[in-house]
Amino acid sequence: MKRIYNKETINHIGEKVKVAGWISSRRDHGKIVFLDLRDKTGLLQVVGESLEEKIQGESVVQIEGKVKERPEKMQNKDLETGKVELEIEKIEVLSRANPLPFDLEGELTLPVALDYRPLVLRTPKNKAIFKIEEGITESFRNNVKKMGFTEFHSPTIVPTASEGGSELFPIDYYDKKAYLAQSPQLYKQIMVGVFEKVFTITHAYRAEPSLTTRHIAEYVSLDLEMGFIDSWQELMETGEKIIKGILKDIQKNYQKELGLFSVSLDTEFEIPRIKLKEALEILYKRTKKDQRQEPDLDPEGEREICKYVKEKYNSDFVFITHYPVSKRPFYTYPDPENPELTLSFDLLYKGLEIVTGGQRIHDYNQLLKNIKKWGNDPKDFDFYLQAFKYGMPPEGGMAIGLERVVKQMLSLNNIREAIPFPRDMQRIDQKLNEKE
Amino acid sequence: MKRIYNKETINHIGEKVKVAGWISSRRDHGKIVFLDLRDKTGLLQVVGESLEEKIQGESVVQIEGKVKERPEKMQNKDLETGKVELEIEKIEVLSRANPLPFDLEGELTLPVALDYRPLVLRTPKNKAIFKIEEGITESFRNNVKKMGFTEFHSPTIVPTASEGGSELFPIDYYDKKAYLAQSPQLYKQIMVGVFEKVFTITHAYRAEPSLTTRHIAEYVSLDLEMGFIDSWQELMETGEKIIKGILKDIQKNYQKELGLFSVSLDTEFEIPRIKLKEALEILYKRTKKDQRQEPDLDPEGEREICKYVKEKYNSDFVFITHYPVSKRPFYTYPDPENPELTLSFDLLYKGLEIVTGGQRIHDYNQLLKNIKKWGNDPKDFDFYLQAFKYGMPPEGGMAIGLERVVKQMLSLNNIREAIPFPRDMQRIDQKLNEKE
Repeated sequence: MKRIYNKETINHIGEKVKVAGWISSRRDHGKIVFLDLRDKTGLLQVVGESLEEKIQGESVVQIEGKVKERPEKMQNKDLETGKVELEIEKIEVLSRANPLPFDLEGELTLPVALDYRPLVLRTPKNKAIFKIEEGITESFRNNVKKMGFTEFHSPTIVPTASEGGSELFPIDYYDKKAYLAQSPQLYKQIMVGVFEKVFTITHAYRAEPSLTTRHIAEYVSLDLEMGFIDSWQELMETGEKIIKGILKDIQKNYQKELGLFSVSLDTEFEIPRIKLKEALEILYKRTKKDQRQEPDLDPEGEREICKYVKEKYNSDFVFITHYPVSKRPFYTYPDPENPELTLSFDLLYKGLEIVTGGQRIHDYNQLLKNIKKWGNDPKDFDFYLQAFKYGMPPEGGMAIGLERVVKQMLSLNNIREAIPFPRDMQRIDQKLNEKE
Repeated sequence: MKRIYNKETINHIGEKVKVAGWISSRRDHGKIVFLDLRDKTGLLQVVGESLEEKIQGESVVQIEGKVKERPEKMQNKDLETGKVELEIEKIEVLSRANPLPFDLEGELTLPVALDYRPLVLRTPKNKAIFKIEEGITESFRNNVKKMGFTEFHSPTIVPTASEGGSELFPIDYYDKKAYLAQSPQLYKQIMVGVFEKVFTITHAYRAEPSLTTRHIAEYVSLDLEMGFIDSWQELMETGEKIIKGILKDIQKNYQKELGLFSVSLDTEFEIPRIKLKEALEILYKRTKKDQRQEPDLDPEGEREICKYVKEKYNSDFVFITHYPVSKRPFYTYPDPENPELTLSFDLLYKGLEIVTGGQRIHDYNQLLKNIKKWGNDPKDFDFYLQAFKYGMPPEGGMAIGLERVVKQMLSLNNIREAIPFPRDMQRIDQKLNEKE
């Protein structure tokens, strides 16, 4: 007999079927035992007599039995299979679980949830987070493909500190040093010379020197880059289209998962665009704290400007634009109207930056000059510079932090909840031993 | 005026349009100049008078002009836009290319092709390779999604040598050591406990100590893992279905690209399954070289057994099965009929291994025993072992080497041609300096 999934049982009332899965819970009523059997499609109630006591929660079993319709008043409306139950005729234990270290249905602190990740990922809320993450990845991919972008695989081992950052992980690369890529930036720009519009879904690495709720050492970046732009505004239009596409797709296809977080996504909005300088003025008026000379928003400022935008424009999103040259990498296009500013933007979502992007310098000589001005050795950029030496159109792009989108969408407290296996300065799977 | 793509010009005969792209070639006939303008959709002939001489090949231009139908006998059948040409009314140079270091239409040696990758990737053959690679990635993803697999993002920073390999890249991870993942193996197994069937498209890293035509330090692995298998044969059935899906999709959607390599893909075949021991016997009969006691096929053996299979079964593919325990990682399921062998397989394609897979041990105690037997410290596997301690179904999976599939499909000489930015012991983008 071929196994069927739990949710298929409702089409087999009165028939004998085979199901398989994990025992999610067990209730003994005298000789009668009720089990909640969990498989990838959901829970199914199975009922049997005198089951051996040793079958612990999370044990994996395969059950043959008859699907019976439950009496109307006994049906469980919360369960997709709630109108049926399975009467056990034969049960086979495929894997016997050890006693669980804690009640999986209870609330767990984050360190415990991370220490026991392989087990804890099996809970409904965790599964929902990663189904939604899959959905976001898919929506991004489908939408940019429709817009004519070509997917490529960007390397993650790089020869030098590409963006001049200090938060790099060095690799022992044979008898040399190499580094983990902080972003696919230089490669996606090179690929604009090949396919005009490209995207890549890749890992990016930052050796964050502290623990925060919004940084992780390894994260997934949804990156795109496009050539032949008429203006840098096109980039924000593209970003807005992608973000709206994601929200629409998730709202449409992940109702059940969103429900676990009491979230419903508004998909009708326009994203306002505010210059950094204006944003700082607004913040000064609202908070009386004078940060008007700062080159960036601090985390509190990001939250406060989003509150303002929510009140005034009813949008969870806002583009902050025109960051100063000093806060952006060497390849950022200067604002022709004010060369101390750049044609760059961040997209904030409910108080957190989730996208960063902008127009890039496509002129070879200007780029070369900037590389020197930023204190880099042009020789380290010979390879990258070829793309510009041999003809590059006006172009720009952006990077979307996947885990940050999920965190904000579901209002998770910590970005570590939005990644199956988070890495930070204290943890790779398990906590790293203190320094010896 | 909004830019249109080159291939759209054929729908605008007699109209004024704007196009943009790279100058692929230039032919001067007295005052008349012919340009081949290249954009992401292909080439377009443009013609103008007295263009300034400085516009080199690969310069990026934007052209406004009138689309004219060419006289019948002047039409270029090889070009999608061959029946029209554009008469230049206005040309704007968006980016001036330097003189090219060589003729892009000529044959290049591999080192030159790699040194000048950003430029060389723009040639038709290179573009075809990476469009096909995109197509393979997409086909894999679509097919496994249809089969009910869930996508997840696997980490690439790992705490220990997960598969006991020596070819690891160490990372300076804050004040500790960590490593680049050789595969997502342990994580995809953990995720079977969550979603039953999972896949991930990820980077894998091997510090190959030598230069070969089939190894690179960083490659893309199409990985999947599935629970509740009835038998390990199911894994090969799944693998065969995926591979056939890829061949069908590429044959259907990439005719033009395949044509550049004079390749047509046969999609009607059955993949034979041959035990390693039998394969070695066959090789002995064919070559008289006695390697019957070897635990694996060598590269010559892989090529020879594929020749045999092609002759006998008319298949470009063959599953080699039942590798000895000694040649497989600790998690490989032993053959119940002969505990010195494993329920594992490689899939060879035209003489090269492109897939490796098998059933895994899902019993916690058996796995623990094997970890010790392989000389590992179980403490290093505490995290991974949780997945088995708390219930894991019978399961297995496989990994497909993306670049190897492309290499074999297009009969490329070197795997470096199948990756946009190859890394090996001598090269990250540019050649690494000799050891100081």
